[in-house]
Amino acid sequence: MNRSMIRYILGHVLLVEGLLMLPCCLVAAFYQEWEGVWYLAVGLAAAALGLIFRRKKPKSPVFYLKEGCVSTALSWVLMSAVGCLPFLLTGEISSFTDAMFETASGFTTTGASILTDVEALSHVSLFWRSFTHWIGGMGVLVFLLAVVPLSGGSHINLMRAESPGPSVGKLVPRLRYTARILYLIYLGLTLLELTFLLAGGMPFFDAVNASFATAGTGGFGIKNSSMADYSVYIQWVVGIFMVLFGVNFNAFYLILLRRVREAAAMEEVRCYLAIIGAATAIIFFNILKLCGGAFDALTKAFFQVASIITTTGYSTANFDLWPETSRFVLVLLMFVGACAGSTGGGIKVSRFVILGKTILKEFGSYIHPKSIKKIKMDGKPIEHEVVRSTNVYFITFLMLFTLSAFLVTLEGQDLVTSFTAVAATINNIGPGLGAVGPVCNFAGLTNLSKWVLTFDMLAGRLELFPMLMLFHPALWKETFPKRFGGRIK
Amino acid sequence: MNRSMIRYILGHVLLVEGLLMLPCCLVAAFYQEWEGVWYLAVGLAAAALGLIFRRKKPKSPVFYLKEGCVSTALSWVLMSAVGCLPFLLTGEISSFTDAMFETASGFTTTGASILTDVEALSHVSLFWRSFTHWIGGMGVLVFLLAVVPLSGGSHINLMRAESPGPSVGKLVPRLRYTARILYLIYLGLTLLELTFLLAGGMPFFDAVNASFATAGTGGFGIKNSSMADYSVYIQWVVGIFMVLFGVNFNAFYLILLRRVREAAAMEEVRCYLAIIGAATAIIFFNILKLCGGAFDALTKAFFQVASIITTTGYSTANFDLWPETSRFVLVLLMFVGACAGSTGGGIKVSRFVILGKTILKEFGSYIHPKSIKKIKMDGKPIEHEVVRSTNVYFITFLMLFTLSAFLVTLEGQDLVTSFTAVAATINNIGPGLGAVGPVCNFAGLTNLSKWVLTFDMLAGRLELFPMLMLFHPALWKETFPKRFGGRIK
Repeated sequence: MNRSMIRYILGHVLLVEGLLMLPCCLVAAFYQEWEGVWYLAVGLAAAALGLIFRRKKPKSPVFYLKEGCVSTALSWVLMSAVGCLPFLLTGEISSFTDAMFETASGFTTTGASILTDVEALSHVSLFWRSFTHWIGGMGVLVFLLAVVPLSGGSHINLMRAESPGPSVGKLVPRLRYTARILYLIYLGLTLLELTFLLAGGMPFFDAVNASFATAGTGGFGIKNSSMADYSVYIQWVVGIFMVLFGVNFNAFYLILLRRVREAAAMEEVRCYLAIIGAATAIIFFNILKLCGGAFDALTKAFFQVASIITTTGYSTANFDLWPETSRFVLVLLMFVGACAGSTGGGIKVSRFVILGKTILKEFGSYIHPKSIKKIKMDGKPIEHEVVRSTNVYFITFLMLFTLSAFLVTLEGQDLVTSFTAVAATINNIGPGLGAVGPVCNFAGLTNLSKWVLTFDMLAGRLELFPMLMLFHPALWKETFPKRFGGRIK
Repeated sequence: MNRSMIRYILGHVLLVEGLLMLPCCLVAAFYQEWEGVWYLAVGLAAAALGLIFRRKKPKSPVFYLKEGCVSTALSWVLMSAVGCLPFLLTGEISSFTDAMFETASGFTTTGASILTDVEALSHVSLFWRSFTHWIGGMGVLVFLLAVVPLSGGSHINLMRAESPGPSVGKLVPRLRYTARILYLIYLGLTLLELTFLLAGGMPFFDAVNASFATAGTGGFGIKNSSMADYSVYIQWVVGIFMVLFGVNFNAFYLILLRRVREAAAMEEVRCYLAIIGAATAIIFFNILKLCGGAFDALTKAFFQVASIITTTGYSTANFDLWPETSRFVLVLLMFVGACAGSTGGGIKVSRFVILGKTILKEFGSYIHPKSIKKIKMDGKPIEHEVVRSTNVYFITFLMLFTLSAFLVTLEGQDLVTSFTAVAATINNIGPGLGAVGPVCNFAGLTNLSKWVLTFDMLAGRLELFPMLMLFHPALWKETFPKRFGGRIK
């Protein structure tokens, strides 16, 4: 284990996070809020600490996938721990558990909150909450790749560990270039949404926050009613941009290259849009009687579907009161998630496409035992390794899910609440059903549940393995050979 | 598709089912119930029809896995359709949907019932219900293999399609011999349980029914209170025998050969017993305050755990009223299921062992990328094909589960009811939670839900693929080339 390299990367992460806190001070200055002082202090301290950490160059450039996983996992834990300090220091959140939950929820773009009254927060803290979504959406290490020259094999292994979904990293061969392109698309789309929102008469502060939270598919609102009190125009703009940010960014890159036909032919994107269409239709008919006319029903159905499948988590209706079929469809969408290579969470549409094709192939082999077919996606055969790791991901997901839900039931929450609380955090969505439904929040849970769910948010955002790796005994033995009984071979 | 061979096998199945109805007539004669006439009539008609079907030998002995799947699926559908006729003719169940549900529930050893008052049934019908459990537990085609000489490759492919779990069929190389051994162990254990129950003062009729239902891990009771009104001794006997019938029968075979150490070392069996121990312990502490003392809590916890993990479905307590943690553990056990090669249903412990090892191997490969390890079970490496098919099974299971639960929500049942109704049928357990809890039943569901759940019971019992295959278009095209546009290649 290359410990000095990990220290070096963590130093970079601290520095970047410290610098990213400084824009908050501008917001505080504008609104003349004293809370800004704490953002300045924490930001400067983090940046200084970061500079110290990265002062000494790493001894060796050796950097394998395990180093990639560990650096990524530790970076995210560290970012959340540092990012939650202003909430504590300003006194706006009183317990460390809650502050950590809220900040991890921000960076992982979950949007689950322990705040019962969001509107009581200062502007600077509201801005920081939304800004964490935007930072976390594309990934901090991807950002590092775009701006910092790192050595050796570290690029590919950091990117593998942080990027959502099984397919990213093959967009263009040069990774630094890829990272820059991704961030440029991200920035461009965010600005586009901001423009549309301002055109609809949304206040500037609201529009900036909404754009950040949509872009990262996060879902922290700055109103207690989430998005319900904004105009129908704004709801549609936010809805459509949520869907866009859930699209595989490769599609946008292809469009930029004017290869529109290729972009339109991407199986994952087509499947993603088809699921959104089908789910909206089912819910539309299911809630039609409860709404004020067909257009109202369509607006509500589309917004909620877009919000859940992209794992944003905004709401314009209390869907916990909807009929069972609609609730069930929304729970399903929680697991489906957005496209790989987007800012959304969940299991990802591409994984389901791969799994569905695996099943069809199995049936085919029963009927024509001698035929040997390779599973294809977008015309190219999927490597055996991808199918295998998809299966492993899926099963690991279910096991972690089950264990987490079990731990949450220990505090006596009902099955629907326990089940959807875990689903909403591990898939980085935000609201669940029952006691964690769209008009409730996570404040009432015990500390044990909050830590379990915080872990799930981080694990879900980093595609499980980096966070789970931290608990592997062999890793500890290797990293601290003296303390854990010698280096194993 | 070898249609004549399938006809031939279905003929055998009809004949066997007809003959198996005749013992019911003895029960009817003993209790002087006129309902026995219908059992005699249906039994003779089925046997006669069976003789006609199997009169002409099949034209070709060609018999691949697809023929095995189709014959098995059709056999089970046919058995259920014929087996439900006496219920309809005696008027004890008035609708065909209900009668089919009840009979499929019997043969698949599910034990889910649409009867609101079981005690109103005639003795002969109660006996037939329990007897279907016993017949279905070990499998009808396995029985055929034991007594009927079938040609060519049909043995292995029938057995592969009907036997539970991924490992059966390797017990001993000669399959007819295996089938006989399995049935002898099955019969011996059933008689042993009967003896213990009679020794505890259980009435003979009750003891016979309870033995059949335990042996098949079915769970149809002959009392409205299931097992709650019997003595604690009887509850422990039934509990222990449920656990025994959930053990991989290979273990008993090894014990018969005096290879006890090998039997005790079987990983799946150890894991199965460990799960039972852990689940009992968790529930024991969770319900301790609700029960009359520690022994009462232990009795209730053990019985319910044994009943659910072996997918029997008897109950001695209304576990739907237990605390959330206990309910959650029971829901988990529904999916775990018993050992492969037992009469129990569910996903099977061995599959979880394989999946768990897959995950550990994945982590290992992150940390030591160059090490190549094969997953082992009982000291032998698991073939890649087994791992792959376990993954495919798991994913197919989840997809079928999701689709079924969606269809059940259409009638407006709450999420817990919909979810556990499907879990209880696809895993062949019986009772779920909520509206299909242990003191309720499936009578109140709509016909759509009942057919969906009937399909799930059959699909679950036959390990999904045979039943799902019936819907594959390529199979139809091949079987009826003229009607479906030509034989595909």
